[in-house]
Amino acid sequence: MKNNTIITISRQYGSGGREIGKRLAEKLGIPFYDKELITLAAQQSGYSEHLFEKSDKGATNSLLYSLSMYGNTMGLYDMPLNDKLFIAQSQTIKNVAEQGPCVIVGRCADYVLRGHPHVLNVFIHSDMESKIKRVVEEYGVESDNVMDLINKTDKRRANYYNYYTGMKWGRAENYHLALRTDCVGIDGAVATLAQFIEAQNALTNEND
Amino acid sequence: MKNNTIITISRQYGSGGREIGKRLAEKLGIPFYDKELITLAAQQSGYSEHLFEKSDKGATNSLLYSLSMYGNTMGLYDMPLNDKLFIAQSQTIKNVAEQGPCVIVGRCADYVLRGHPHVLNVFIHSDMESKIKRVVEEYGVESDNVMDLINKTDKRRANYYNYYTGMKWGRAENYHLALRTDCVGIDGAVATLAQFIEAQNALTNEND
Repeated sequence: MKNNTIITISRQYGSGGREIGKRLAEKLGIPFYDKELITLAAQQSGYSEHLFEKSDKGATNSLLYSLSMYGNTMGLYDMPLNDKLFIAQSQTIKNVAEQGPCVIVGRCADYVLRGHPHVLNVFIHSDMESKIKRVVEEYGVESDNVMDLINKTDKRRANYYNYYTGMKWGRAENYHLALRTDCVGIDGAVATLAQFIEAQNALTNEND
Repeated sequence: MKNNTIITISRQYGSGGREIGKRLAEKLGIPFYDKELITLAAQQSGYSEHLFEKSDKGATNSLLYSLSMYGNTMGLYDMPLNDKLFIAQSQTIKNVAEQGPCVIVGRCADYVLRGHPHVLNVFIHSDMESKIKRVVEEYGVESDNVMDLINKTDKRRANYYNYYTGMKWGRAENYHLALRTDCVGIDGAVATLAQFIEAQNALTNEND
Protein backbone atom coordinates (compact mmCIF):
# COMPACT_ATOMS: atom_id res chain seq x y z
CA MET A 1 0.00 0.00 0.00
CA LYS A 2 1.45 3.38 -1.02
CA ASN A 3 1.60 5.71 1.91
CA ASN A 4 3.27 9.03 2.59
CA THR A 5 1.35 9.86 5.74
CA ILE A 6 2.44 10.64 9.28
CA ILE A 7 -0.11 8.97 11.53
CA THR A 8 -0.61 10.36 15.02
CA ILE A 9 -2.54 8.31 17.56
CA SER A 10 -4.22 9.72 20.64
CA ARG A 11 -5.80 7.07 22.82
CA GLN A 12 -7.71 6.38 25.98
CA TYR A 13 -5.77 4.28 28.52
CA GLY A 14 -6.58 0.60 27.95
CA SER A 15 -8.15 1.13 24.53
CA GLY A 16 -5.38 -0.71 22.67
CA GLY A 17 -4.33 2.43 20.77
CA ARG A 18 -0.62 1.72 21.18
CA GLU A 19 -1.01 -1.85 19.88
CA ILE A 20 -3.08 -0.59 16.93
CA GLY A 21 -0.40 1.98 16.09
CA LYS A 22 2.33 -0.65 16.29
CA ARG A 23 0.50 -3.09 14.02
CA LEU A 24 -0.45 -0.36 11.57
CA ALA A 25 3.20 0.71 11.35
CA GLU A 26 4.20 -2.91 10.68
CA LYS A 27 1.50 -3.25 8.01
CA LEU A 28 2.65 -0.05 6.31
CA GLY A 29 6.34 -0.82 6.82
CA ILE A 30 7.05 2.50 8.54
CA PRO A 31 8.68 3.40 11.89
CA PHE A 32 6.69 3.43 15.12
CA TYR A 33 7.35 5.92 17.91
CA ASP A 34 5.99 5.81 21.43
CA LYS A 35 8.47 5.71 24.30
CA GLU A 36 11.21 5.66 21.65
CA LEU A 37 10.57 9.41 21.41
CA ILE A 38 11.75 9.89 24.99
CA THR A 39 15.14 8.39 24.23
CA LEU A 40 15.42 10.44 21.06
CA ALA A 41 14.28 13.64 22.75
CA ALA A 42 16.82 13.09 25.53
CA GLN A 43 19.61 12.52 23.00
CA GLN A 44 18.67 15.55 20.95
CA SER A 45 17.95 18.00 23.77
CA GLY A 46 20.53 17.13 26.40
CA TYR A 47 17.87 16.74 29.14
CA SER A 48 18.03 13.39 30.90
CA GLU A 49 15.74 10.56 29.86
CA HIS A 50 14.61 10.35 33.49
CA LEU A 51 13.12 13.85 33.31
CA PHE A 52 11.10 13.00 30.19
CA GLU A 53 9.89 9.79 31.83
CA LYS A 54 8.81 11.66 34.92
CA SER A 55 6.91 14.17 32.82
CA ASP A 56 5.45 11.34 30.75
CA LYS A 57 4.18 9.53 33.81
CA GLY A 58 2.36 12.61 34.90
CA ALA A 59 3.87 14.40 37.83
CA THR A 60 1.71 17.22 36.53
CA ASN A 61 -1.99 17.58 37.13
CA SER A 62 -4.76 19.96 36.24
CA LEU A 63 -4.20 22.35 39.15
CA LEU A 64 -0.49 22.64 38.51
CA TYR A 65 -1.12 23.22 34.82
CA SER A 66 -3.62 25.94 35.66
CA LEU A 67 -1.21 27.60 38.05
CA SER A 68 1.54 27.49 35.47
CA MET A 69 -0.58 29.59 33.18
CA TYR A 70 -0.14 32.45 35.61
CA GLY A 71 3.61 32.35 35.51
CA ASN A 72 6.32 30.98 37.71
CA THR A 73 6.06 33.34 40.64
CA MET A 74 5.10 30.70 43.19
CA GLY A 75 8.35 28.77 43.36
CA LEU A 76 6.95 25.75 41.50
CA TYR A 77 10.26 25.18 39.81
CA ASP A 78 9.16 22.23 37.68
CA MET A 79 6.61 24.19 35.68
CA PRO A 80 8.90 25.88 33.20
CA LEU A 81 10.89 22.65 33.01
CA ASN A 82 7.77 20.78 31.89
CA ASP A 83 7.27 23.39 29.21
CA LYS A 84 10.90 23.05 28.15
CA LEU A 85 10.53 19.29 27.97
CA PHE A 86 7.39 19.71 25.87
CA ILE A 87 9.23 21.98 23.46
CA ALA A 88 12.21 19.61 23.21
CA GLN A 89 9.90 16.65 22.63
CA SER A 90 7.97 18.62 20.00
CA GLN A 91 11.21 19.33 18.16
CA THR A 92 12.01 15.60 18.19
CA ILE A 93 8.53 14.86 16.78
CA LYS A 94 9.13 17.38 13.97
CA ASN A 95 12.52 15.80 13.29
CA VAL A 96 11.16 12.26 12.95
CA ALA A 97 8.25 13.52 10.81
CA GLU A 98 10.75 15.15 8.44
CA GLN A 99 12.33 11.77 7.84
CA GLY A 100 9.14 10.39 6.27
CA PRO A 101 6.00 8.41 7.07
CA CYS A 102 5.70 7.01 10.60
CA VAL A 103 3.27 6.34 13.42
CA ILE A 104 3.55 8.50 16.55
CA VAL A 105 1.61 7.69 19.73
CA GLY A 106 0.52 10.45 22.14
CA ARG A 107 2.55 13.54 23.07
CA CYS A 108 0.18 15.98 21.29
CA ALA A 109 1.82 14.99 17.99
CA ASP A 110 -1.38 15.96 16.12
CA TYR A 111 -0.98 19.51 17.42
CA VAL A 112 2.80 19.62 17.04
CA LEU A 113 2.48 18.60 13.37
CA ARG A 114 -0.52 20.82 12.56
CA GLY A 115 -0.07 22.33 9.13
CA HIS A 116 2.01 19.38 7.93
CA PRO A 117 0.57 18.42 4.54
CA HIS A 118 0.34 14.68 5.19
CA VAL A 119 -0.83 14.05 8.71
CA LEU A 120 -3.63 11.71 9.72
CA ASN A 121 -4.81 12.22 13.29
CA VAL A 122 -6.48 9.25 14.96
CA PHE A 123 -8.26 8.86 18.31
CA ILE A 124 -8.74 5.37 19.78
CA HIS A 125 -11.19 4.73 22.58
CA SER A 126 -13.23 1.84 23.98
CA ASP A 127 -15.91 0.93 26.49
CA MET A 128 -14.90 0.70 30.15
CA GLU A 129 -15.35 -3.08 30.40
CA SER A 130 -12.85 -3.83 27.63
CA LYS A 131 -10.41 -1.21 28.94
CA ILE A 132 -10.40 -2.77 32.40
CA LYS A 133 -9.88 -6.22 30.83
CA ARG A 134 -6.92 -5.02 28.75
CA VAL A 135 -5.27 -3.09 31.61
CA VAL A 136 -5.47 -6.09 33.95
CA GLU A 137 -4.80 -8.94 31.52
CA GLU A 138 -2.41 -7.39 29.03
CA TYR A 139 -0.70 -4.55 30.91
CA GLY A 140 -0.57 -6.71 34.06
CA VAL A 141 -1.67 -3.84 36.29
CA GLU A 142 -2.65 -4.82 39.83
CA SER A 143 -4.97 -2.35 41.47
CA ASP A 144 -8.01 -2.42 43.72
CA ASN A 145 -9.72 0.09 41.51
CA VAL A 146 -8.69 -0.22 37.87
CA MET A 147 -11.58 1.94 36.67
CA ASP A 148 -10.37 4.78 38.86
CA LEU A 149 -6.83 4.33 37.49
CA ILE A 150 -8.19 4.46 33.92
CA ASN A 151 -10.26 7.58 34.59
CA LYS A 152 -7.36 9.35 36.30
CA THR A 153 -4.91 8.44 33.52
CA ASP A 154 -7.28 9.79 30.88
CA LYS A 155 -7.95 12.91 32.95
CA ARG A 156 -4.18 13.51 33.00
CA ARG A 157 -3.88 12.93 29.27
CA ALA A 158 -6.76 15.32 28.65
CA ASN A 159 -5.25 17.99 30.92
CA TYR A 160 -1.86 17.68 29.21
CA TYR A 161 -3.42 17.87 25.75
CA ASN A 162 -5.83 20.69 26.55
CA TYR A 163 -3.11 22.74 28.23
CA TYR A 164 -0.53 22.46 25.45
CA THR A 165 -2.87 22.58 22.44
CA GLY A 166 -5.74 24.84 23.54
CA MET A 167 -8.08 22.20 22.07
CA LYS A 168 -10.24 19.57 23.72
CA TRP A 169 -8.88 16.02 23.93
CA GLY A 170 -11.36 13.49 22.58
CA ARG A 171 -13.46 15.89 20.49
CA ALA A 172 -14.17 14.11 17.19
CA GLU A 173 -13.43 17.19 15.10
CA ASN A 174 -9.76 17.22 16.20
CA TYR A 175 -9.15 13.88 14.49
CA HIS A 176 -9.54 12.55 10.96
CA LEU A 177 -10.71 9.23 12.32
CA ALA A 178 -11.88 8.19 15.78
CA LEU A 179 -12.93 4.67 16.57
CA ARG A 180 -14.00 2.42 19.39
CA THR A 181 -12.07 -0.83 19.62
CA ASP A 182 -14.32 -3.11 21.69
CA CYS A 183 -16.73 -3.75 18.78
CA VAL A 184 -14.10 -4.47 16.09
CA GLY A 185 -11.03 -5.66 18.01
CA ILE A 186 -7.43 -4.66 17.30
CA ASP A 187 -7.37 -6.34 13.87
CA GLY A 188 -10.65 -4.67 12.85
CA ALA A 189 -9.35 -1.28 13.96
CA VAL A 190 -6.13 -1.72 11.96
CA ALA A 191 -8.14 -2.82 8.88
CA THR A 192 -10.45 0.22 9.21
CA LEU A 193 -7.50 2.58 9.52
CA ALA A 194 -5.79 0.96 6.52
CA GLN A 195 -9.01 1.40 4.49
CA PHE A 196 -9.23 5.07 5.48
CA ILE A 197 -5.58 5.66 4.50
CA GLU A 198 -6.15 3.88 1.18
CA ALA A 199 -9.15 6.15 0.48
CA GLN A 200 -7.09 9.20 1.46
CA ASN A 201 -4.27 8.21 -0.89
CA ALA A 202 -6.75 7.52 -3.71
CA LEU A 203 -8.31 10.96 -3.29
CA THR A 204 -4.89 12.65 -3.15
CA ASN A 205 -3.79 10.90 -6.35
CA GLU A 206 -7.11 11.83 -8.02
CA ASN A 207 -6.60 15.50 -7.14
CA ASP A 208 -2.94 15.59 -8.23
CA MET B 1 -22.10 -8.30 3.14
CA LYS B 2 -24.01 -9.77 6.09
CA ASN B 3 -25.33 -7.06 8.32
CA ASN B 4 -27.80 -6.90 11.16
CA THR B 5 -26.88 -3.46 12.41
CA ILE B 6 -28.87 -0.28 12.92
CA ILE B 7 -26.58 2.55 11.86
CA THR B 8 -27.20 6.00 13.32
CA ILE B 9 -25.48 9.00 11.75
CA SER B 10 -24.90 12.31 13.49
CA ARG B 11 -23.30 14.90 11.26
CA GLN B 12 -22.03 18.44 10.98
CA TYR B 13 -23.99 20.58 8.51
CA GLY B 14 -22.27 20.39 5.12
CA SER B 15 -20.13 17.36 5.98
CA GLY B 16 -21.95 15.04 3.57
CA GLY B 17 -23.22 12.82 6.41
CA ARG B 18 -26.67 12.43 4.89
CA GLU B 19 -25.24 11.41 1.51
CA ILE B 20 -22.88 8.94 3.19
CA GLY B 21 -25.79 7.42 5.09
CA LYS B 22 -27.86 7.13 1.92
CA ARG B 23 -25.06 5.45 -0.04
CA LEU B 24 -24.21 3.12 2.82
CA ALA B 25 -27.88 2.06 3.06
CA GLU B 26 -27.88 1.36 -0.69
CA LYS B 27 -24.64 -0.62 -0.41
CA LEU B 28 -26.03 -2.70 2.45
CA GLY B 29 -29.50 -2.98 0.88
CA ILE B 30 -31.28 -1.61 3.95
CA PRO B 31 -33.79 1.25 4.45
CA PHE B 32 -32.61 4.83 4.92
CA TYR B 33 -34.43 7.29 7.19
CA ASP B 34 -33.90 11.02 7.37
CA LYS B 35 -36.87 13.28 6.71
CA GLU B 36 -38.88 10.11 6.08
CA LEU B 37 -39.04 9.83 9.86
CA ILE B 38 -41.07 13.03 10.05
CA THR B 39 -43.80 11.62 7.82
CA LEU B 40 -43.79 8.37 9.77
CA ALA B 41 -43.80 10.12 13.14
CA ALA B 42 -46.73 12.29 12.04
CA GLN B 43 -48.67 9.24 10.87
CA GLN B 44 -47.97 7.30 14.04
CA SER B 45 -48.46 10.09 16.57
CA GLY B 46 -51.33 12.12 15.14
CA TYR B 47 -49.34 15.39 15.33
CA SER B 48 -49.15 17.24 12.03
CA GLU B 49 -46.11 16.85 9.79
CA HIS B 50 -45.82 20.65 9.82
CA LEU B 51 -45.13 20.64 13.58
CA PHE B 52 -42.32 18.11 13.21
CA GLU B 53 -40.84 20.11 10.34
CA LYS B 54 -40.93 23.29 12.41
CA SER B 55 -39.20 21.53 15.29
CA ASP B 56 -36.73 19.97 12.85
CA LYS B 57 -35.81 23.34 11.34
CA GLY B 58 -35.01 24.65 14.77
CA ALA B 59 -37.53 27.06 16.17
CA THR B 60 -35.80 26.09 19.38
CA ASN B 61 -32.52 27.44 20.59
CA SER B 62 -30.23 27.09 23.55
CA LEU B 63 -31.94 29.69 25.74
CA LEU B 64 -35.38 28.24 25.15
CA TYR B 65 -34.08 24.77 25.88
CA SER B 66 -32.54 26.00 29.07
CA LEU B 67 -35.73 27.71 30.14
CA SER B 68 -37.72 24.59 29.41
CA MET B 69 -35.66 22.72 31.95
CA TYR B 70 -37.27 24.85 34.63
CA GLY B 71 -40.79 23.92 33.63
CA ASN B 72 -43.54 25.59 31.71
CA THR B 73 -44.46 28.36 34.08
CA MET B 74 -43.53 31.22 31.77
CA GLY B 75 -46.19 30.81 29.12
CA LEU B 76 -43.76 29.44 26.53
CA TYR B 77 -46.43 27.16 25.12
CA ASP B 78 -44.24 25.38 22.55
CA MET B 79 -41.83 23.91 25.09
CA PRO B 80 -43.78 20.87 26.22
CA LEU B 81 -44.90 20.39 22.63
CA ASN B 82 -41.27 20.10 21.53
CA ASP B 83 -40.76 17.48 24.19
CA LYS B 84 -43.89 15.65 23.04
CA LEU B 85 -42.65 15.75 19.46
CA PHE B 86 -39.29 14.37 20.59
CA ILE B 87 -41.00 11.51 22.41
CA ALA B 88 -43.26 10.75 19.42
CA GLN B 89 -40.26 10.81 17.08
CA SER B 90 -38.28 8.58 19.44
CA GLN B 91 -41.10 6.03 19.41
CA THR B 92 -41.04 6.06 15.59
CA ILE B 93 -37.26 5.49 15.66
CA LYS B 94 -37.75 2.51 17.99
CA ASN B 95 -40.47 1.17 15.68
CA VAL B 96 -38.31 1.31 12.54
CA ALA B 97 -35.36 -0.20 14.44
CA GLU B 98 -37.56 -3.13 15.45
CA GLN B 99 -38.18 -3.90 11.80
CA GLY B 100 -34.49 -4.66 11.19
CA PRO B 101 -31.25 -3.10 9.94
CA CYS B 102 -31.46 0.47 8.64
CA VAL B 103 -29.63 3.79 8.54
CA ILE B 104 -31.08 6.68 10.58
CA VAL B 105 -29.77 10.23 10.22
CA GLY B 106 -29.90 12.69 13.12
CA ARG B 107 -32.70 12.99 15.69
CA CYS B 108 -30.59 11.67 18.59
CA ALA B 109 -31.19 8.14 17.27
CA ASP B 110 -27.96 6.98 18.94
CA TYR B 111 -29.39 7.98 22.31
CA VAL B 112 -32.92 6.76 21.57
CA LEU B 113 -31.55 3.32 20.67
CA ARG B 114 -29.02 3.05 23.50
CA GLY B 115 -29.02 -0.46 24.89
CA HIS B 116 -30.08 -1.91 21.53
CA PRO B 117 -27.73 -4.87 20.93
CA HIS B 118 -26.85 -4.01 17.33
CA VAL B 119 -26.38 -0.28 16.97
CA LEU B 120 -23.44 1.42 15.33
CA ASN B 121 -23.22 5.14 16.08
CA VAL B 122 -21.36 7.28 13.55
CA PHE B 123 -20.33 10.96 13.56
CA ILE B 124 -19.44 12.65 10.28
CA HIS B 125 -17.59 15.95 10.18
CA SER B 126 -15.35 17.90 7.80
CA ASP B 127 -13.17 20.97 7.51
CA MET B 128 -14.90 24.34 7.05
CA GLU B 129 -13.70 24.86 3.46
CA SER B 130 -15.29 21.65 2.19
CA LYS B 131 -18.47 22.26 4.20
CA ILE B 132 -18.90 25.72 2.65
CA LYS B 133 -18.31 24.24 -0.81
CA ARG B 134 -20.91 21.51 -0.30
CA VAL B 135 -23.53 23.85 1.20
CA VAL B 136 -23.20 26.32 -1.68
CA GLU B 137 -22.68 23.95 -4.62
CA GLU B 138 -24.73 20.92 -3.62
CA TYR B 139 -27.40 22.24 -1.26
CA GLY B 140 -27.78 25.39 -3.38
CA VAL B 141 -27.83 27.66 -0.33
CA GLU B 142 -27.48 31.37 -1.09
CA SER B 143 -26.18 33.37 1.82
CA ASP B 144 -23.79 36.23 2.45
CA ASN B 145 -22.23 34.30 5.27
CA VAL B 146 -22.33 30.56 4.74
CA MET B 147 -19.79 29.93 7.50
CA ASP B 148 -22.06 31.66 9.99
CA LEU B 149 -25.00 29.55 8.77
CA ILE B 150 -22.95 26.36 9.21
CA ASN B 151 -21.82 27.32 12.70
CA LYS B 152 -25.35 28.26 13.77
CA THR B 153 -26.85 25.08 12.35
CA ASP B 154 -24.30 22.96 14.20
CA LYS B 155 -24.83 24.97 17.38
CA ARG B 156 -28.54 24.18 17.13
CA ARG B 157 -27.86 20.49 16.49
CA ALA B 158 -25.51 20.39 19.49
CA ASN B 159 -28.05 22.14 21.74
CA TYR B 160 -30.80 19.77 20.68
CA TYR B 161 -28.59 16.72 21.22
CA ASN B 162 -27.10 17.88 24.53
CA TYR B 163 -30.52 18.82 25.90
CA TYR B 164 -32.26 15.56 25.06
CA THR B 165 -29.40 13.14 25.71
CA GLY B 166 -27.43 14.74 28.54
CA MET B 167 -24.29 13.95 26.51
CA LYS B 168 -22.02 16.16 24.41
CA TRP B 169 -22.59 16.21 20.65
CA GLY B 170 -19.37 15.56 18.75
CA ARG B 171 -17.44 13.87 21.56
CA ALA B 172 -15.62 10.90 20.01
CA GLU B 173 -16.53 8.54 22.85
CA ASN B 174 -20.27 8.83 22.04
CA TYR B 175 -19.72 7.17 18.67
CA HIS B 176 -18.26 3.88 17.49
CA LEU B 177 -16.74 5.63 14.48
CA ALA B 178 -16.19 9.31 13.72
CA LEU B 179 -14.59 10.47 10.52
CA ARG B 180 -13.70 13.58 8.56
CA THR B 181 -14.87 13.53 4.96
CA ASP B 182 -12.70 16.15 3.24
CA CYS B 183 -9.64 13.87 3.16
CA VAL B 184 -11.36 10.71 1.87
CA GLY B 185 -14.46 11.97 0.02
CA ILE B 186 -17.92 10.45 0.19
CA ASP B 187 -16.85 7.18 -1.45
CA GLY B 188 -13.88 6.83 0.90
CA ALA B 189 -16.09 7.45 3.92
CA VAL B 190 -18.60 4.81 2.78
CA ALA B 191 -15.76 2.32 2.15
CA THR B 192 -14.31 2.98 5.63
CA LEU B 193 -17.72 2.53 7.28
CA ALA B 194 -18.29 -0.68 5.32
CA GLN B 195 -14.89 -1.97 6.47
CA PHE B 196 -15.70 -1.14 10.09
CA ILE B 197 -19.07 -2.94 9.86
CA GLU B 198 -17.40 -5.95 8.26
CA ALA B 199 -14.89 -6.08 11.13
CA GLN B 200 -17.72 -5.72 13.65
CA ASN B 201 -19.65 -8.59 12.06
CA ALA B 202 -16.52 -10.75 11.93
CA LEU B 203 -15.89 -10.19 15.65
CA THR B 204 -19.54 -10.88 16.52
CA ASN B 205 -19.47 -14.16 14.57
CA GLU B 206 -16.17 -15.10 16.21
CA ASN B 207 -17.65 -14.56 19.66
CA ASP B 208 -20.92 -16.41 18.90
